[in-house]
Amino acid sequence: MERILSKQNAKVKAWAKLATKKGRQEQKTYLLDGWHLVEEAIKANAKFHAIMATEEQMEAHLPDVPHGVPAFEISKEVAAHIAGSKTPQGIFAEVTLPEKTFDPAYVHDGLWLFLDAIQDPGNVGTLIRTADAAGFKGVVLGQDTADAYAPKVVRAMQGSHFHLEVLQGDLNDWIDAFEQNDLPVYGSELNEAAKPYQDIHGLSAGALIVGNEGQGLNPDLAAKTTANLYIPILGSAESLNVAVAGGILMFRLSLGN
Amino acid sequence: MERILSKQNAKVKAWAKLATKKGRQEQKTYLLDGWHLVEEAIKANAKFHAIMATEEQMEAHLPDVPHGVPAFEISKEVAAHIAGSKTPQGIFAEVTLPEKTFDPAYVHDGLWLFLDAIQDPGNVGTLIRTADAAGFKGVVLGQDTADAYAPKVVRAMQGSHFHLEVLQGDLNDWIDAFEQNDLPVYGSELNEAAKPYQDIHGLSAGALIVGNEGQGLNPDLAAKTTANLYIPILGSAESLNVAVAGGILMFRLSLGN
Repeated sequence: MERILSKQNAKVKAWAKLATKKGRQEQKTYLLDGWHLVEEAIKANAKFHAIMATEEQMEAHLPDVPHGVPAFEISKEVAAHIAGSKTPQGIFAEVTLPEKTFDPAYVHDGLWLFLDAIQDPGNVGTLIRTADAAGFKGVVLGQDTADAYAPKVVRAMQGSHFHLEVLQGDLNDWIDAFEQNDLPVYGSELNEAAKPYQDIHGLSAGALIVGNEGQGLNPDLAAKTTANLYIPILGSAESLNVAVAGGILMFRLSLGN
Repeated sequence: MERILSKQNAKVKAWAKLATKKGRQEQKTYLLDGWHLVEEAIKANAKFHAIMATEEQMEAHLPDVPHGVPAFEISKEVAAHIAGSKTPQGIFAEVTLPEKTFDPAYVHDGLWLFLDAIQDPGNVGTLIRTADAAGFKGVVLGQDTADAYAPKVVRAMQGSHFHLEVLQGDLNDWIDAFEQNDLPVYGSELNEAAKPYQDIHGLSAGALIVGNEGQGLNPDLAAKTTANLYIPILGSAESLNVAVAGGILMFRLSLGN
């Protein structure tokens, strides 16, 4: 097994570049940091380009890695450099970046979450993880939403991108296609003129849109929905965190009570 | 007005130390970063020790600052140093650290959130903000929970600590006192043997406990509750983010449907 001890190594430089969108698009791969994510990728039959681990992590996990995956033993310094953090677990995988095209005209079932300009990577990842937990079929990342394969998003998704569809798209097209297919699309608004979410019961198919952290849902999208929902604020907070609000609405739609 | 241009200035060093628990305990103050928080502190009649702002921010906001608060104009470099971030808004306040004692034996009403070993500052802050939005009366931070006045917690609370009680305490004492006063205490568990949360309806008084991100609720606390609730996981995610789970349960308890 090749041992890599220097941050100047060309492979290390390439892995570190996967922290940027440009790096991921050029190399058509992204990075998984930590055994939990690597294990989820193995279960999901992801296409591995490399596995990189410190001596200790390699000893613990090499037997579980699929045969034929190039494995590299790395120093703790190299691990910290790839992770962009001081104390990573010390095991990584480089896997193929999904390049899916998905025509919403063919969607006839399941619950879908649409993200409109969600900018915080932790929020994007947590919303995808929550959509998975709530039994949603997919998440569509609209314009100005953080990239699903950015390191902080991948960390917060905790592997959920292996369980449901995670797609990029123009939310206008998705809303139009859903309405064409008679599937309801609910927006969410911080607006007491909208529909209280408790008035909605379960759905087997349709979509929920959540909007930007500061600006809320784009008014052009809000104008196209079947209805817009709001969560009553009972205290003095001005708003809810978007991942919390999304979680409340998603579980309402999926459980129905 | 005193102008401070050097990071070596003794006041700047003291403000920067407020990022640490030791610094806050020694100086008995904490830091608010950004006009939104400073404004919430003004509305709440917080005790101000100082207000610090760049020239631009001072011009915009000085008229709204209470009379008699010592004001300091700071350079952008000093602002970044105090904030511990590259591009802060450029306005800060140093305010008195609350030192409340609160005997749970006297609690007879309202909904309360108990945090058991919630370690991530963003989660602690988001849970407090959500408790505020859900109309809760207070939040009690148990052992091993991130400090409420750490900068990342203050940022995520978005001023909610000015709207409800935020206390530290021994959760064992709080549970005992609530049960003594006939107030229900619900734990939350990732355990299908627990009670589905949809079986619970609204409460006007009582408590919800949420537990550590990785370990869940401490079993000794879980054993003392009135009942433990779980949120059904419908997809393949292993769990929910604790702030999302807390939000779903808090709105259920407060809205009742």
